[in-house]
Amino acid sequence: MKIGFIGTGIMGQPMAQHLINGGHEVFFSSHYKAVPSELLSAGGKSVANPKEVAQNSDIIITMVPDTPHVEEVLFGEDGVAQGLSAGKMVIDMSSISPMATKDIAARINELGCEFVDAPVSGGEVGAKAASLTIMVGATEGGFDRAKPLFELMGKNITLVGGNGDGQTCKVANQIIVALNIEAVSEALVFASKAGANPAKVREALMGGFAASKILEVHGERMIKRTFDPGFKIALHQKDLNLALSSARELNMSLPNTATAQELFNTVSAHGGAGSDHSALVKSIEIMANHTIGE
Amino acid sequence: MKIGFIGTGIMGQPMAQHLINGGHEVFFSSHYKAVPSELLSAGGKSVANPKEVAQNSDIIITMVPDTPHVEEVLFGEDGVAQGLSAGKMVIDMSSISPMATKDIAARINELGCEFVDAPVSGGEVGAKAASLTIMVGATEGGFDRAKPLFELMGKNITLVGGNGDGQTCKVANQIIVALNIEAVSEALVFASKAGANPAKVREALMGGFAASKILEVHGERMIKRTFDPGFKIALHQKDLNLALSSARELNMSLPNTATAQELFNTVSAHGGAGSDHSALVKSIEIMANHTIGE
Repeated sequence: MKIGFIGTGIMGQPMAQHLINGGHEVFFSSHYKAVPSELLSAGGKSVANPKEVAQNSDIIITMVPDTPHVEEVLFGEDGVAQGLSAGKMVIDMSSISPMATKDIAARINELGCEFVDAPVSGGEVGAKAASLTIMVGATEGGFDRAKPLFELMGKNITLVGGNGDGQTCKVANQIIVALNIEAVSEALVFASKAGANPAKVREALMGGFAASKILEVHGERMIKRTFDPGFKIALHQKDLNLALSSARELNMSLPNTATAQELFNTVSAHGGAGSDHSALVKSIEIMANHTIGE
Repeated sequence: MKIGFIGTGIMGQPMAQHLINGGHEVFFSSHYKAVPSELLSAGGKSVANPKEVAQNSDIIITMVPDTPHVEEVLFGEDGVAQGLSAGKMVIDMSSISPMATKDIAARINELGCEFVDAPVSGGEVGAKAASLTIMVGATEGGFDRAKPLFELMGKNITLVGGNGDGQTCKVANQIIVALNIEAVSEALVFASKAGANPAKVREALMGGFAASKILEVHGERMIKRTFDPGFKIALHQKDLNLALSSARELNMSLPNTATAQELFNTVSAHGGAGSDHSALVKSIEIMANHTIGE
């Protein structure tokens, strides 16, 4: 199939590579930066801009940093919309605003084209291993059409609901992950400061109601002090900003998400913006004047 | 073995019953209220006060509401301490202050007796089914001596560390459970208010880093609106009070635990103090003026 892929960064490059490896003819835009040579030598085609990508492709995938970038590559000058014709499909795999996504979907639909929002989790490791979790907002028909491509890039693929619901699910995911990291941080620093062995406490809690993927994976990172990303604090801050600005737009309060964002700021103030998000624990440690295991 | 058991409330009565069923001779105090007739007809012995319980027993177990009650039954008038002699053992299975526990242990040790802190989780259901999780602070020798009794009452039994560490582990457990409930509350109300189906979102998140026992069990309660306890908000508030007062004593900050306590207050203000702790979600709903699934 002829596929356009816009956004060949840390996530996008390996994802696009899987599509090429899957036998698809993939078109890239060189408007922002040169297409990575690995993709070209694997058979990828470089064209001038997103408009030309859309003209050459049946399905166009975007994987860019944030809401304004999606709007720019789709609806800006020489954007995807100018190259679309009825029957084509646009899939946005970026993590952006659920509310903006509904507007974007409506504008693409007006051109006679399907829109699918399909943000991912799993990070660079998941992108390279083609094991991404993909949360999809689409019609049933749109989902069925996009699914063979998703299966080349991910493993845990769920149709959550209509347009925007994929992005909403991704925001919900990032809220829970941040707050579960914060919960384990408070509990383990408390345990350590009270004189208990945090590793023994973590072990005792793994079998009960406190059990979580975060206690298992990130709890261990906190105890072993392994803060190489993984998933960088700066990226989780971008996602919590999306959660908080979306909540503001929806008129709702996310009190602990707001605090978690502030605690990430504390870690960043101490040089940790590039650390794995499990380093959130350092904010609780800094306030307590106590490091786990001390 | 001759065992004393002080505190035959909702938790204590079934726990003591398992000890009688296990073939032990169990002594109860009638100083506070009459010993439940089921325990007496099963073979339990009623004596006048905690002092007499201690005089008649080799191991004395306490299972009372809070720190002051443990101090009263151990060191008050006609208390356990007055009936102890060297070589006996005191096991406190209440959930109380880790710091106070260290002092209590020292005072019991001065009498030539071993002390074990062994708070539990699993609630009334776990007490009745003898499936409690038991978090133990003791010496290796004390743990070995107490273990056969724990095995009559629980399943997941861990020696966390020395005296106080069992209580510290219990506090850490209650922090994580409360904050994971709060996390799922923020995420599911956000998802619902943004127009997604919260049941589909929960399902999509179960396979990834947001997965937790709380998302599984309490997330489902939030969606199905089943708020019969379970574990009552009023009891979780008692435990978070213990976390926050202990943290104050240790000079450390638990920002999201403090907020979770305030959110429980909000639910209580709306009549929910007797609801299951998963009803914390109502605080986020009240603030958002939106009920999940609406």
